[in-house]
Amino acid sequence: MRFVLVHGAWHFGDLWDGVRSHLVAAGHEVHTPTAGGLRPGDGMDVDLRGAAEPIARYIRDRKLSDYVLVGHSWGGYLVTRLAIDMPERLRRLVYFAAYVPAHGRALIDELPPALAEAVAELVAPDGSLQIPFAMWRDAFFSDGTADHARDVYERLRPHPFRTLTDKADMTGWDAVPKAFSFIQPYEDHDIPQGEWARHPRLTSRLGLFRLVGMPGSHEVLLTNPALTATKLVEAGRD
Amino acid sequence: MRFVLVHGAWHFGDLWDGVRSHLVAAGHEVHTPTAGGLRPGDGMDVDLRGAAEPIARYIRDRKLSDYVLVGHSWGGYLVTRLAIDMPERLRRLVYFAAYVPAHGRALIDELPPALAEAVAELVAPDGSLQIPFAMWRDAFFSDGTADHARDVYERLRPHPFRTLTDKADMTGWDAVPKAFSFIQPYEDHDIPQGEWARHPRLTSRLGLFRLVGMPGSHEVLLTNPALTATKLVEAGRD
Amino acid sequence: MRFVLVHGAWHFGDLWDGVRSHLVAAGHEVHTPTAGGLRPGDGMDVDLRGAAEPIARYIRDRKLSDYVLVGHSWGGYLVTRLAIDMPERLRRLVYFAAYVPAHGRALIDELPPALAEAVAELVAPDGSLQIPFAMWRDAFFSDGTADHARDVYERLRPHPFRTLTDKADMTGWDAVPKAFSFIQPYEDHDIPQGEWARHPRLTSRLGLFRLVGMPGSHEVLLTNPALTATKLVEAGRD
Repeated sequence: MRFVLVHGAWHFGDLWDGVRSHLVAAGHEVHTPTAGGLRPGDGMDVDLRGAAEPIARYIRDRKLSDYVLVGHSWGGYLVTRLAIDMPERLRRLVYFAAYVPAHGRALIDELPPALAEAVAELVAPDGSLQIPFAMWRDAFFSDGTADHARDVYERLRPHPFRTLTDKADMTGWDAVPKAFSFIQPYEDHDIPQGEWARHPRLTSRLGLFRLVGMPGSHEVLLTNPALTATKLVEAGRD
Repeated sequence: MRFVLVHGAWHFGDLWDGVRSHLVAAGHEVHTPTAGGLRPGDGMDVDLRGAAEPIARYIRDRKLSDYVLVGHSWGGYLVTRLAIDMPERLRRLVYFAAYVPAHGRALIDELPPALAEAVAELVAPDGSLQIPFAMWRDAFFSDGTADHARDVYERLRPHPFRTLTDKADMTGWDAVPKAFSFIQPYEDHDIPQGEWARHPRLTSRLGLFRLVGMPGSHEVLLTNPALTATKLVEAGRD
Repeated sequence: MRFVLVHGAWHFGDLWDGVRSHLVAAGHEVHTPTAGGLRPGDGMDVDLRGAAEPIARYIRDRKLSDYVLVGHSWGGYLVTRLAIDMPERLRRLVYFAAYVPAHGRALIDELPPALAEAVAELVAPDGSLQIPFAMWRDAFFSDGTADHARDVYERLRPHPFRTLTDKADMTGWDAVPKAFSFIQPYEDHDIPQGEWARHPRLTSRLGLFRLVGMPGSHEVLLTNPALTATKLVEAGRD
């Protein structure tokens, strides 16, 4: 299979390295471009189209097609944008603990109100958002060791907050091939589990989709890349 | 243990072959009769009593008793009928990703309204219901390979829709031994997960019951027969 | 790591023996004192402070500090009490399928009303509560064998019901270090799963916490002590 893996907030392409190794070893082709706003030197004045643009260019430059497009977390907004803009190239669309956008709603609109307020207060004057270590370690990286958590945390990048307040434009969504999967880590808890959880609340927007479950936290791509690779194959195959 | 395994919609007895092999190898006795309406040559004008009747006859002809009675999915209606009609023969009643009926309600009444409407539109003039491959593959068989999905799908049989609109008669339910189990595959998703899911909504009708969980899809008896056999033993033992 | 493990209702310290062996073998220090009301000869006129007192004394006598304090089930009330009374000694607070108290509410207030009524009717004239075997076997010990269930059941002790009606006093909770974990066994079902389940309803009282999941029943410390030990480490580490 050919995979295009799109990272989440604070992440960048190389954080897929572990997953990529396992997929490549199993004979798959893997692409891990970095979104706009997350590359070294990028400014923070980036919206969803601006974040998706470098990935779209990566795909067009290499004339990629027939790929499984995977979005992790915030990356759900980007893969949705890419699927709408290039539906003919897509084999299957996989939301991996990812937001499923709705027309006219931004990521921040999908958070429980108290969490949305807390997040907004973390925004720096330059428009960048950083997550405190204590929150990220327990809510995102719960199944990793403390040392591993610290190592990864130090590699995270400031995130352009504007991409969390930019409202999704779903015009053209109906032309996207109806081949959807959602990967649910059982311990996914960056949004507290319960009524505001992404699944089944946001996944219901997909209509028919394939549900793939796995033990693990929101950052299971880093804490268990081998199992993540297996589940990406289960989610991505026909 | 002695097991009587009752299949779900579109299924028939021999689709338990994989599970049966594992149970027999572990020393258990296994019976897998086919419901009325699902045997070659059966007509489609079958209600719940008509669907249960060949299984009841199978049990009586062989003078079976002291068995663990397992119903998968739609088979929950049949094992409930059989438990009410022959409570004295029953050791334990196991609902395996199965509907738990309520008096005066049919299976179609338990589906989310939009899904119930979609299903009703699939009924053929002869009263048979077939499920489209795309829906079955992603919503029922999510953890299997595409080839396996195609192979099994081609063996599925038309289902008598009348058994989905026939309302359950629970008269006599109080005499059924209070020894219930429910097996919940974590990725069970033929009914979308959330407020309409069978568990915990329909399982609450059982009162006290043993909950047995396992990774897997609605059709995990086919995608992971070894683990299914293990979980049937955990659900069925005293 | 240093663990102080606090048992649940009907339990006592030595029921942690299996878990303790695995933790000690992995190099950890483990303490398993028994709560007031659950020691041989204890009377039933015990409230939450009285139940916690022998554990507090155990900790003070040994000058323990820098420990991970784990409460199982009802033990959630005791570890909360101990955390408030001795916050400076605490490294991390772990709720293991445990109640997270709220100020002015008792355990019985957290049960679904029908279950609360059924429990209240089981109280003996001396104020002790015993749980019927059929309920405990299927709702608490679902993943164990029948023989194991019978063996453990015969070791369970009468529980002082007053500790289930005594209302939690959370005065001082704000001074407890904000380092919380919750362990969720997937098949936890002593309270029926659904709207009354401890997670996410009661866990939301913690604010930020680390979620650790595992297959198993409410009594998984007895049915799978090895995995429980592993998960206690994942929950307790920094």
